Amino acid sequence: MSLMEFEMIAHYFTRPSQRQDVVQGIGDDCALLRVPAGMELAVTIDTLVGGVHFLQDANPYAIGWKSLAVSLSDLAAMGAEPAWATLALTLPEASTSWLAAFSRGLFDLADQYGLALVGGNTSRGPLSITVQAHGFVPQGTALCRRGAAVGDLIYVTGTLGDAAVGLDLCLGHEPASVAPTARDYLLTRLNQPEPRVAVGLALRGIASSAIDLSDGLVADLGHVLLASGVGATVDLARIPRSAALKGLIIPWEKVVGGGDDYELCFTVPPNRQGQLEAALHDVGCAYTPIGVIVSRNGLEWCDATGQAVVIAATGYRHFP
Amino acid sequence: MSLMEFEMIAHYFTRPSQRQDVVQGIGDDCALLRVPAGMELAVTIDTLVGGVHFLQDANPYAIGWKSLAVSLSDLAAMGAEPAWATLALTLPEASTSWLAAFSRGLFDLADQYGLALVGGNTSRGPLSITVQAHGFVPQGTALCRRGAAVGDLIYVTGTLGDAAVGLDLCLGHEPASVAPTARDYLLTRLNQPEPRVAVGLALRGIASSAIDLSDGLVADLGHVLLASGVGATVDLARIPRSAALKGLIIPWEKVVGGGDDYELCFTVPPNRQGQLEAALHDVGCAYTPIGVIVSRNGLEWCDATGQAVVIAATGYRHFP
Repeated sequence: MSLMEFEMIAHYFTRPSQRQDVVQGIGDDCALLRVPAGMELAVTIDTLVGGVHFLQDANPYAIGWKSLAVSLSDLAAMGAEPAWATLALTLPEASTSWLAAFSRGLFDLADQYGLALVGGNTSRGPLSITVQAHGFVPQGTALCRRGAAVGDLIYVTGTLGDAAVGLDLCLGHEPASVAPTARDYLLTRLNQPEPRVAVGLALRGIASSAIDLSDGLVADLGHVLLASGVGATVDLARIPRSAALKGLIIPWEKVVGGGDDYELCFTVPPNRQGQLEAALHDVGCAYTPIGVIVSRNGLEWCDATGQAVVIAATGYRHFP
Repeated sequence: MSLMEFEMIAHYFTRPSQRQDVVQGIGDDCALLRVPAGMELAVTIDTLVGGVHFLQDANPYAIGWKSLAVSLSDLAAMGAEPAWATLALTLPEASTSWLAAFSRGLFDLADQYGLALVGGNTSRGPLSITVQAHGFVPQGTALCRRGAAVGDLIYVTGTLGDAAVGLDLCLGHEPASVAPTARDYLLTRLNQPEPRVAVGLALRGIASSAIDLSDGLVADLGHVLLASGVGATVDLARIPRSAALKGLIIPWEKVVGGGDDYELCFTVPPNRQGQLEAALHDVGCAYTPIGVIVSRNGLEWCDATGQAVVIAATGYRHFP
């Protein structure tokens, strides 16, 4: 890109930081940052590719929002407090209207958490957005995948499957008879997920494991089971579904196998149920027990009567 | 990509870390890292796009090497000690031979600095590699762009222009009569740059400003001058050129305007020349004074007789 184009792009992303821990933000070879004493730094990097993770003509405000949201969701799953982000943006051309909307979406979400954009890079090429998010967690208190133990209850926040059905709507695979309000709700769930940061923070010291649902419950709970060396039984009748979804005929495979929900899935020992209720009482996010950790490896499903149900979904799995 | 493809890709990048400061590496929602007390964290993110920053059929070993080298060069320019990296890899397909060579190139360079790959993400899409590098610098000692003062001498490490001519060779714009050994040298300079990490570390407390030459001397020294509110006079006859380049007829515009050299450009106050010589004596990297910082804004060039010379190059400029 030309010098002028790069300066124009930088204009949309350079803002003075209010954070004391940012010694040097955008504008030098590196950002210089201070991690508070006693804190571990949690970092996560994610890429959204045009035509793969979103449609090429998707709303740039939503792309900006979601490109940060998916990384904040990873911080939430570790129980980390968001602090900083970096952005590597690859664009086929420098469109001012696209950049204005994209940066607004990204900063609207960043501002909810007082997060500073501290570094970036722009290249010309096929549309692709990589965000690394950085957060703090007191030493030794991070929520990891490997802590689930036999007897722990399994919970999910919010409702599952909304984003997968929202994607069907985007792609024109309309389920029969979607009301306009339900349609709007499902598309918002797909395009502007709300990372469950407050839930993750509240779960420190309570949850024995946690993960965010980016690839679907089947795949993501599967990661927890593998890392913890345990299995699980999940009651399909307890899987929380939105009012919008309950009005439609959606196969279970889509609800528990579809990605992009960005809810949290976590496990809690039975003797910490009271602590859990107290900690999440004021967070304002629904959470539902859906099953239990068992010693027999693998993920089994049952219906309301306890009968085993076969689910064919495998979800999507990314590196790592 | 399929589950199997992602597992296959993860295989190439997951290695046990020897670093005590990596609490959790690849394998959870986030990496968990500890920054030593008294250290600031330096971070930098860079993207290499296939067909833009390298030819689509380029040697994957060199792509792996260079994708980390460009970020380590930014750490070098801040005087930061490399510690960790994350990798976001977008691939059109999962080729085992490509991945094996790419990861070998990346780790061969990482191992030179004891750097750990602590997180990653893989997507399907047009070939693109984003690396974020993380390093440590004692609080308040980072080499920034804004510290150049009138009277400071301007230095560059190594030789300039090799990578720009190497790119011409790659693209088939052969300068006349390039000997095979010169050709090999120039292509290696383009494809496997050596980040000047040891120089950057040695310059802490001595250099008043520093930047790495990713976009060419004109553009990068220009950043230093702008950030420092000063100007410079540079003597073209002092610009260090390799033996390979001296044997060719290359316009000055390419030597001082071409990118990808990944040498350092830094300024040193006149009263620290002795310290500089002592600090770089054992580093094993050539460095050359090329000019002086002046109060009049702008970058002026002169020849060996002191006559002003006009250079048309502007270099490339990226965000930030």
